[in-house]
Amino acid sequence: MSHNTFGHLFRVTTWGESHGPAIGCVIDGCPPGIRFTVAEIQVELDKRRPGQSRFVTQRREPDAVKVLSGVLPEEDGETLITTGTPISMMIENVDQRSKDYSEIARRFRPGHADFTYETKYGLRDYRGGGRSSARETATRVAAGALARKVVPGLKVRGALVSMGVKDIDRANWDWDFIGHEENPFFTPDPKSVAVFTDYLDGIRKAGSSVGAVIEVVAEGVPAGLGAPLYAKLDQDICSNLMSINAVKGVEIGNGFEAARITGEENADEMRMGNDGRPRFLSNNAGGILGGISTGEPVIARFAVKPTSSILTPRQSVDKDGKDVDVMTKGRHDPCVGIRAVPIGEAMMACAIADHYLRHRGQTGQG
Amino acid sequence: MSHNTFGHLFRVTTWGESHGPAIGCVIDGCPPGIRFTVAEIQVELDKRRPGQSRFVTQRREPDAVKVLSGVLPEEDGETLITTGTPISMMIENVDQRSKDYSEIARRFRPGHADFTYETKYGLRDYRGGGRSSARETATRVAAGALARKVVPGLKVRGALVSMGVKDIDRANWDWDFIGHEENPFFTPDPKSVAVFTDYLDGIRKAGSSVGAVIEVVAEGVPAGLGAPLYAKLDQDICSNLMSINAVKGVEIGNGFEAARITGEENADEMRMGNDGRPRFLSNNAGGILGGISTGEPVIARFAVKPTSSILTPRQSVDKDGKDVDVMTKGRHDPCVGIRAVPIGEAMMACAIADHYLRHRGQTGQG
Amino acid sequence: MSHNTFGHLFRVTTWGESHGPAIGCVIDGCPPGIRFTVAEIQVELDKRRPGQSRFVTQRREPDAVKVLSGVLPEEDGETLITTGTPISMMIENVDQRSKDYSEIARRFRPGHADFTYETKYGLRDYRGGGRSSARETATRVAAGALARKVVPGLKVRGALVSMGVKDIDRANWDWDFIGHEENPFFTPDPKSVAVFTDYLDGIRKAGSSVGAVIEVVAEGVPAGLGAPLYAKLDQDICSNLMSINAVKGVEIGNGFEAARITGEENADEMRMGNDGRPRFLSNNAGGILGGISTGEPVIARFAVKPTSSILTPRQSVDKDGKDVDVMTKGRHDPCVGIRAVPIGEAMMACAIADHYLRHRGQTGQG
Amino acid sequence: MSHNTFGHLFRVTTWGESHGPAIGCVIDGCPPGIRFTVAEIQVELDKRRPGQSRFVTQRREPDAVKVLSGVLPEEDGETLITTGTPISMMIENVDQRSKDYSEIARRFRPGHADFTYETKYGLRDYRGGGRSSARETATRVAAGALARKVVPGLKVRGALVSMGVKDIDRANWDWDFIGHEENPFFTPDPKSVAVFTDYLDGIRKAGSSVGAVIEVVAEGVPAGLGAPLYAKLDQDICSNLMSINAVKGVEIGNGFEAARITGEENADEMRMGNDGRPRFLSNNAGGILGGISTGEPVIARFAVKPTSSILTPRQSVDKDGKDVDVMTKGRHDPCVGIRAVPIGEAMMACAIADHYLRHRGQTGQG
Repeated sequence: MSHNTFGHLFRVTTWGESHGPAIGCVIDGCPPGIRFTVAEIQVELDKRRPGQSRFVTQRREPDAVKVLSGVLPEEDGETLITTGTPISMMIENVDQRSKDYSEIARRFRPGHADFTYETKYGLRDYRGGGRSSARETATRVAAGALARKVVPGLKVRGALVSMGVKDIDRANWDWDFIGHEENPFFTPDPKSVAVFTDYLDGIRKAGSSVGAVIEVVAEGVPAGLGAPLYAKLDQDICSNLMSINAVKGVEIGNGFEAARITGEENADEMRMGNDGRPRFLSNNAGGILGGISTGEPVIARFAVKPTSSILTPRQSVDKDGKDVDVMTKGRHDPCVGIRAVPIGEAMMACAIADHYLRHRGQTGQG
Repeated sequence: MSHNTFGHLFRVTTWGESHGPAIGCVIDGCPPGIRFTVAEIQVELDKRRPGQSRFVTQRREPDAVKVLSGVLPEEDGETLITTGTPISMMIENVDQRSKDYSEIARRFRPGHADFTYETKYGLRDYRGGGRSSARETATRVAAGALARKVVPGLKVRGALVSMGVKDIDRANWDWDFIGHEENPFFTPDPKSVAVFTDYLDGIRKAGSSVGAVIEVVAEGVPAGLGAPLYAKLDQDICSNLMSINAVKGVEIGNGFEAARITGEENADEMRMGNDGRPRFLSNNAGGILGGISTGEPVIARFAVKPTSSILTPRQSVDKDGKDVDVMTKGRHDPCVGIRAVPIGEAMMACAIADHYLRHRGQTGQG
Repeated sequence: MSHNTFGHLFRVTTWGESHGPAIGCVIDGCPPGIRFTVAEIQVELDKRRPGQSRFVTQRREPDAVKVLSGVLPEEDGETLITTGTPISMMIENVDQRSKDYSEIARRFRPGHADFTYETKYGLRDYRGGGRSSARETATRVAAGALARKVVPGLKVRGALVSMGVKDIDRANWDWDFIGHEENPFFTPDPKSVAVFTDYLDGIRKAGSSVGAVIEVVAEGVPAGLGAPLYAKLDQDICSNLMSINAVKGVEIGNGFEAARITGEENADEMRMGNDGRPRFLSNNAGGILGGISTGEPVIARFAVKPTSSILTPRQSVDKDGKDVDVMTKGRHDPCVGIRAVPIGEAMMACAIADHYLRHRGQTGQG
Repeated sequence: MSHNTFGHLFRVTTWGESHGPAIGCVIDGCPPGIRFTVAEIQVELDKRRPGQSRFVTQRREPDAVKVLSGVLPEEDGETLITTGTPISMMIENVDQRSKDYSEIARRFRPGHADFTYETKYGLRDYRGGGRSSARETATRVAAGALARKVVPGLKVRGALVSMGVKDIDRANWDWDFIGHEENPFFTPDPKSVAVFTDYLDGIRKAGSSVGAVIEVVAEGVPAGLGAPLYAKLDQDICSNLMSINAVKGVEIGNGFEAARITGEENADEMRMGNDGRPRFLSNNAGGILGGISTGEPVIARFAVKPTSSILTPRQSVDKDGKDVDVMTKGRHDPCVGIRAVPIGEAMMACAIADHYLRHRGQTGQG
């Protein structure tokens, strides 16, 4: 049982708050013999790094990851090879502005965990969100970068499919557009950039915020991962996605839509392919049937609530039991959902890596 | 790590298939000194029991639960008291019709786990759905009946809020109507019964099926349960709900809707109440902030896909790699989502009981 | 976290007390495709069955095991094949003599768990030892019978190597003598039978009891099982053995003796064998170095304390806080250690099976 | 399931090798509100620090611990208070002499894990013992320092009770002598110092090594911690002790000796004390009955094998399958058991803290 670990055979334990000296994670159970470079991890980290456009927090952290254990250096001086022992990764916090937190130290910000942390623990680290700082997610992305390498051929990609009331047009879907320098939104629809830009500028200027829906797709997932009931692959992916801050809903395949269509429409039919292997004629199931992967792409979506820190005063109470008004000052991120894209990818990659090892353990396959 | 266990301090391990001699569960970690009767468990079981209307499978099982361990009888001869040791409960399978399964033994039914089980394990129990039989859920309901007693004052109730394309009218919500003998749908909206009846009759006669959305509400959840990141109360509730067969999506509070509204609208404001305690002016968060319960009702919804067994032929393949058409014969349940209501309640109760004990362990509260 | 489960990928959860209707276990994670018969399980169970000689409790239970889930029958009607889903096994309690427990219900028997159970749980099942009844161990033996089949070529055998102050002569070691009908002690030394018989007769007639030391040897353990630090194979074997009632010490290889010899004497040297594979010239390490199996036989020993139920009055207290004298009446087992032999085998087999699957999961070997 | 984590509610995950940049641990589940200073941790660390006498390795590491997360500073600038979130502690490696490891990189040192690591993982970090370096134990000691604070009134102390063939005289036991500056052996018997000095000098000069037996005693352990069977307090203490490098045996209370005495001698009798509470007249059980603490001191012993690195050539093989002779050069620690004393204390403290929280979770006591 753990409060800060996810996964079973590919286990990730994270630690750290935004205002301590560092954040980090320990990956336990990573198979030996996996080669990677720090630069490869850094590429993933840079995806979620703040300070990349006016739409995300202006905090500037290099997020330079250090690998402290569990690897041997290859002769090229760059490649690291995993040894099977725990891999500790650390990212130092360098941008801890000596902000004045005296006000929020005693006030419970609506939509934040201030009240519940205080209630549960009797105290809390009010500096920069404490444990629930978005900064913690950097360690997940680092872990996810390794998880991707555990499953041969695995490819996990995420995309923002709606922001507030604005949806992308799926007809325009172009994976290659994500990562494009003129795409600060992780949207796969090039035409949506102008729409999102206008929309979010308006939200930002109003001191408001909006949520987002993210879709993550994993290709190259071997059939057979998961288990029938309490270790369903979809269950563990959803659990991992729900562990991301501000996520309020998750779905697999056609998700909630499945509840509105008929059995004939929903069940994915099969036919033998030309390669002599069964293939599915559709993928409403999102690549998972009965908790076990089918070999089709695994598809999940999750909903991120609007940023709770807004520049509009809201009613609340303080530790002394007095009614107060609370308003965020300074840094303001009008749609935290944007940065959730690489985090969602990482969490799905970790779930799949974990089940890949579990499946291999129980059945000897893979 | 387990494939058939959920929970940590209140741990439930389930076993059994519909065509073996019995199904059952073992509850490990139940606190000592909890009093209950077998009749109380049976009441919960009877809620999900098949054969109650023409809308659910006609299999008739008494589902009589036996408590095999972990209890001492009180002098009244009925009350059992938990001893702190594992509680084993068993339900015998009495209605195993000697059906001819030779056809589906070799064919992969679309929407079912036939293909994935066969791929994963190299063999499968094709009789009656094997491990993924809806019958297994009886054991969860039995466990949930005990979980409810672990948290003093806890009240967990579920309702069907939509069936296929038909939604209830929330303005008519009446908890007391659920359980009413003229309500075979667990709907809280009395006016919806006629609508659902007509709709589902049509679906049934067409040999088709539809899905459903279920809402579960827990009242009396103490503030402070859960953890900030990887043991969030909402995460564990969602994970438990996702473990139910045919569930494709889960959400907490306003869920996916949260992604479409602004931060001002979404964040639940607070004011001091007349009783000197903080209260929330709304509950968009569904009773959970930062993974920890607020003291407000905990609210979750989950989407159940339409029954995969339909009376319409669908394209598929068989074990020999041949294209075949598959059609379900015999028992037919046009909306499995209906029976998911008590199961959803049970799974939420178990998650809350588990976190109640975990919270008490870490903090000494409760 | 669990109180009644051991193992991780090969997980065993046991339940039941001697005076309930049944005892049983659930095995989760057993690989699919393993063939066994109920008769094979029964053979193991019969080894530990009471009532086999005047030296073990006279309670007569057939200990007939039923397999309730997780298997498919083969066509021969006897062979079962595991499906990868949880395997539930149950043994009904048929010999629950309606003994009068009123006396011990309120008294704390020295050496028993009466006082600690009462302190921990506030109540206890005083009938026949409750959860700590030796009867529970039957379920471990059943699980161990399956565990043996998980690792190809695994052979696990146990022997009693000392009883009270009497030791076997290792020069006479004959594995085949264990199981011999004239060997009620699981001793590998044929000459020891007469010695043990006389000794234990004296102990029994005096209403006294003695302990025993058991040695368990596993051959056919592949090299590479275990982990460097917190999942050492020896650690998990010792933990499993310590979970057996009345065990007070465990050791691996030369164990405590290692502390008394020098590094030169203790370290097992190696040389290349004629088969081109490294071999160890000795096995002081008991087949495990740095927590990982070497390929040599894995050897463990454990010490069982003398039976606490003796026919001699001992000083104690009761629930009312009064000084009392306690004396066991009726059934009396002068050396419970004898029956611990098959249990020790089972627990070692389970630990090895678990690590076999874990190793396969992490490294893909095996 | 984890390979590098121990504990359940008080969970410790360790990472690091002696030749990486640092070692560390993450403590998950520590209750909030516990006050400590880095200096308090450091005191424990200094106990096991190498370089303190000619009898332990001459490597000089300051072992300065940094606390990276999970705490808030008090106003005094020294006291830290735990927040309930994960506590990350790190110790940098500063003394990584650029030794030439080319020889042992390809050779399997007898008694070491070289062969088994290579077999398991296909590669290994041969520098300084890699993961099984004694250096890793510093992180356990740091964790143990916090664990001691989790249980109010807990006092855990360890002592070396034998070294090779030399035993202390228990009649001279003086806890206060441990920690004395003229006691480099953690012996509680002042008269043993001269004996051990002469003995170990001889061993050291001969390039040999010896083992040791350590006893750890925990006072102030509340009655009721543990569980009847698979989470016995003694089982988990033994498991924790077995996880220490080079430990080959563990025992509780009178341990293996229990197997040699009678039931009358072994069972600890009880009488009501003058304070109206039951007391035990002896403590053969080592403070644990039926897996649950009695309130008496908890006593465990463990055997440490002689240091495997000796200055005497031993037969072995290398990675190329050639017979070679292996001899350790440089640093030489004639009795690693000495430094195991504070590690044993730490591991016992962690087991007790974990069970304290588990007991509180399940029963609400404490």
